[in-house]
Amino acid sequence: MAEIVDIARGALNAQPFSALLGTKLMQVDSTSLTLCLTIRDELRQQHGFVHGGVVSYLVDNALTFAGALRLGPKVVTGEYKINYLRPAVSGTLMARARVVYAGMTQATCQCDVYVTDGGAERLVAVAQGTIHRISEMAAELEPVFNE
Amino acid sequence: MAEIVDIARGALNAQPFSALLGTKLMQVDSTSLTLCLTIRDELRQQHGFVHGGVVSYLVDNALTFAGALRLGPKVVTGEYKINYLRPAVSGTLMARARVVYAGMTQATCQCDVYVTDGGAERLVAVAQGTIHRISEMAAELEPVFNE
Amino acid sequence: MAEIVDIARGALNAQPFSALLGTKLMQVDSTSLTLCLTIRDELRQQHGFVHGGVVSYLVDNALTFAGALRLGPKVVTGEYKINYLRPAVSGTLMARARVVYAGMTQATCQCDVYVTDGGAERLVAVAQGTIHRISEMAAELEPVFNE
Amino acid sequence: MAEIVDIARGALNAQPFSALLGTKLMQVDSTSLTLCLTIRDELRQQHGFVHGGVVSYLVDNALTFAGALRLGPKVVTGEYKINYLRPAVSGTLMARARVVYAGMTQATCQCDVYVTDGGAERLVAVAQGTIHRISEMAAELEPVFNE
Repeated sequence: MAEIVDIARGALNAQPFSALLGTKLMQVDSTSLTLCLTIRDELRQQHGFVHGGVVSYLVDNALTFAGALRLGPKVVTGEYKINYLRPAVSGTLMARARVVYAGMTQATCQCDVYVTDGGAERLVAVAQGTIHRISEMAAELEPVFNE
Repeated sequence: MAEIVDIARGALNAQPFSALLGTKLMQVDSTSLTLCLTIRDELRQQHGFVHGGVVSYLVDNALTFAGALRLGPKVVTGEYKINYLRPAVSGTLMARARVVYAGMTQATCQCDVYVTDGGAERLVAVAQGTIHRISEMAAELEPVFNE
Repeated sequence: MAEIVDIARGALNAQPFSALLGTKLMQVDSTSLTLCLTIRDELRQQHGFVHGGVVSYLVDNALTFAGALRLGPKVVTGEYKINYLRPAVSGTLMARARVVYAGMTQATCQCDVYVTDGGAERLVAVAQGTIHRISEMAAELEPVFNE
Repeated sequence: MAEIVDIARGALNAQPFSALLGTKLMQVDSTSLTLCLTIRDELRQQHGFVHGGVVSYLVDNALTFAGALRLGPKVVTGEYKINYLRPAVSGTLMARARVVYAGMTQATCQCDVYVTDGGAERLVAVAQGTIHRISEMAAELEPVFNE
């Protein structure tokens, strides 16, 4: 288990974009994990809310890391869908992702994003998507069928 | 038309997160627009590709701006879905979004993301989502039914 | 509560397409409900599995009914996303939908579809979508902006 | 090309659920195809509109058939997302699906659903999803990781 934490934290720290934003690994077990991100002004859109793109990034990352818990570290997000529920203004964003189903080459995962500002957690967004093992996707990276 | 360009550019410039990433408005007309973002190392994940969250952010933003072309500037993204097709490595990302359908209070939009590196454009992701007028969503922001 | 059951069952019985397929209301409470459908040969695709369209129909219907628990009976599905996990071959399909978040005019719901054939339940699909109150959507039905 | 038409029509005719609903193959070429379905009372929901599940079924089927144009006939829909735009009341539904991107083992496809009633076509729904080659998915059908 300590190994999973180390691998996940290592992968996160190896992402320049996650370093730019300030994402941290908050919790991880065999089928789920939580990423967190402290809200600051640089992460906002023009109405003062956290930019939806920040929430999306966090969902994308948490889904991928959840998939890696089953598929191993060489994974990419194939697709996902997100519903925004409430704007986030201040405090900390937490994205909790879990594996719903995993085969040999891909996993279906779900993610809930909360915001907490010292008090109760409020649900900000829900998402669902597919994670692929990269080795299985290698042929996809240089497809023969596309111009 | 010049007014639309000014409003869109003004909204983009008013987004601290878009300033952090470096997003520019490339093109806008009455039903579509293009945002672009030059790839740099800060935007990558651990395998050297542009982070999926960057592509998602660009999609989220382009969908919202497209919705605003019909619904006016006070809009938010309600939900969207993205399929990643190819990794992006270098050059410039371009997100082209268009309105597929618009009513009085919401619009359905689609977005294609391309990467170009001096040569041909390659499709990186496709997305589809719903944009809401904020005034219509005001009641949603403080819902009475949720704990 | 008995009233909710009667309204939900009445709405289901008033759907000719649900009668054609044979869908039944299995369970309902204030925030969730379960629809079920006995698998028969007419519901299959060419490989002998239940047609994905049958699972989708069940998801669409269960999401809408879940939304109605918060928004009232005049609702339509605005959009949803489904991930198919396993093929269903025999027994009974059960679609369990719940409200994740509800405002005044729309609700975000999730749905799990299981198949059971006398023994354990197996997860077949997961879905997530948005339900709208029709009254709020009236303007959308005859939009002024679309050709 | 005549062979593609024959294979596609054969697959459609081999689907008991499509026979129950009355779906026909209207057009097919190397990267797109159109399925059509005449609206009749059995396909409605309680408000008199075509049931969303009918539109979803048509989308699911058209996406899968489009994927088969690149991946061969042994395919299944992995996931998709649909946005409903307008209710359909009478006439004929037409689902036009096209391949957006295809690798060796999966294809991303989009689908537009129209209704026509003697006159102009009106857009009813738009969808986007992933199709998998079954051979690549065989390991998924009996996954070792799931209870």
